[in-house]
Amino acid sequence: MKLPPRTVERLSKYRRLLSNKKYPEDDHIFSHKLAGFLNLTPEQVRRDLMLIGINGNHRKGYHVGTMIDVIGRIIDRQEGHNLALVGICNLGRAVLRFIRKSGTRMNIVAAFDIDDNKVNTTISGVPCHAISNLPKVIVEQNIHIAILTVPSEAVNEITTRLINAGIKGILNFTSVPLDVPGDVYLKDYDIITSLEEIGFYLKD
Amino acid sequence: MKLPPRTVERLSKYRRLLSNKKYPEDDHIFSHKLAGFLNLTPEQVRRDLMLIGINGNHRKGYHVGTMIDVIGRIIDRQEGHNLALVGICNLGRAVLRFIRKSGTRMNIVAAFDIDDNKVNTTISGVPCHAISNLPKVIVEQNIHIAILTVPSEAVNEITTRLINAGIKGILNFTSVPLDVPGDVYLKDYDIITSLEEIGFYLKD
Repeated sequence: MKLPPRTVERLSKYRRLLSNKKYPEDDHIFSHKLAGFLNLTPEQVRRDLMLIGINGNHRKGYHVGTMIDVIGRIIDRQEGHNLALVGICNLGRAVLRFIRKSGTRMNIVAAFDIDDNKVNTTISGVPCHAISNLPKVIVEQNIHIAILTVPSEAVNEITTRLINAGIKGILNFTSVPLDVPGDVYLKDYDIITSLEEIGFYLKD
Repeated sequence: MKLPPRTVERLSKYRRLLSNKKYPEDDHIFSHKLAGFLNLTPEQVRRDLMLIGINGNHRKGYHVGTMIDVIGRIIDRQEGHNLALVGICNLGRAVLRFIRKSGTRMNIVAAFDIDDNKVNTTISGVPCHAISNLPKVIVEQNIHIAILTVPSEAVNEITTRLINAGIKGILNFTSVPLDVPGDVYLKDYDIITSLEEIGFYLKD
């Protein structure tokens, strides 16, 4: 199913919100209620759900379990996704724990670092490998998404290696804007630059 | 000085890269070298620097110290910015440490949580206050930027309080798309949604 990125984002948010709230099995929710939690309009919510074939009931609203299931079938891969964390700093560790706690079907199955003290240990249950083993582990473990929390100097070289090994999606926490091929999906999370940008626009 | 967000982003990156590399006092760098580190074109770098009045030398390139100073004068507030971290989870703690280590003039001066075990402690040197004291502390400490790492359910109410207390910039790590007034500068960092979006586009 082809969907625009904004729709995928919203579907992911609906599902997460509904899953976290642990509704009883036969529970329903009205579009305006769901919209209210996420600061959206009820029309937007109804449009998104109609697009993926979910219809509400005028009296009861939308069935929560159905929504979670259908969204899952559309945005998840059946077997989940295998991820690698590249660069084990505090931020990397926290992101790893955050993802594992979220209940998403994103499985961080490997971590990589150059530090001998970290290699061959496990970080929150995830084995840490040497960067030199990156191509081998990426292929063997069927990893397609990488989270980059490496120092800026290292990021270009590591990105090239990741892409050569078959990585197709990157969440980039470094300050380096990556130059990736068209078939690699990239999201940038450059915290310091974002804060300095926020700071600039409220300087006066 | 009025500058587009992309230019501010790049200036922030130039400055960070040059500062981290600790160049000797009389050192220079060519635009193609700086561009290479950041996957930009030399023309882009020269255009950005010209825009803020920095000229290079044909033989030696751009003076590193001057670049760092001039960028700082343009994008920083003289006295820096005071920030608050709202919600002390692992991710919040790591973001706090990451920012403090980066050497940016973004000072996290207060943290907030509802957990009595965290209130009145210090987190990496930052005092943690009760959420109920939020308006008072925000005003007293002249805080204008907030980093949100709270649970999704709490974010709407807390955002309203932050904005009422005078917050003008928000870095939002929650899954809730915030509805903020036009004079509040907002950046969203929703990790799980970003990963699920990446996953969706490489599903096949």
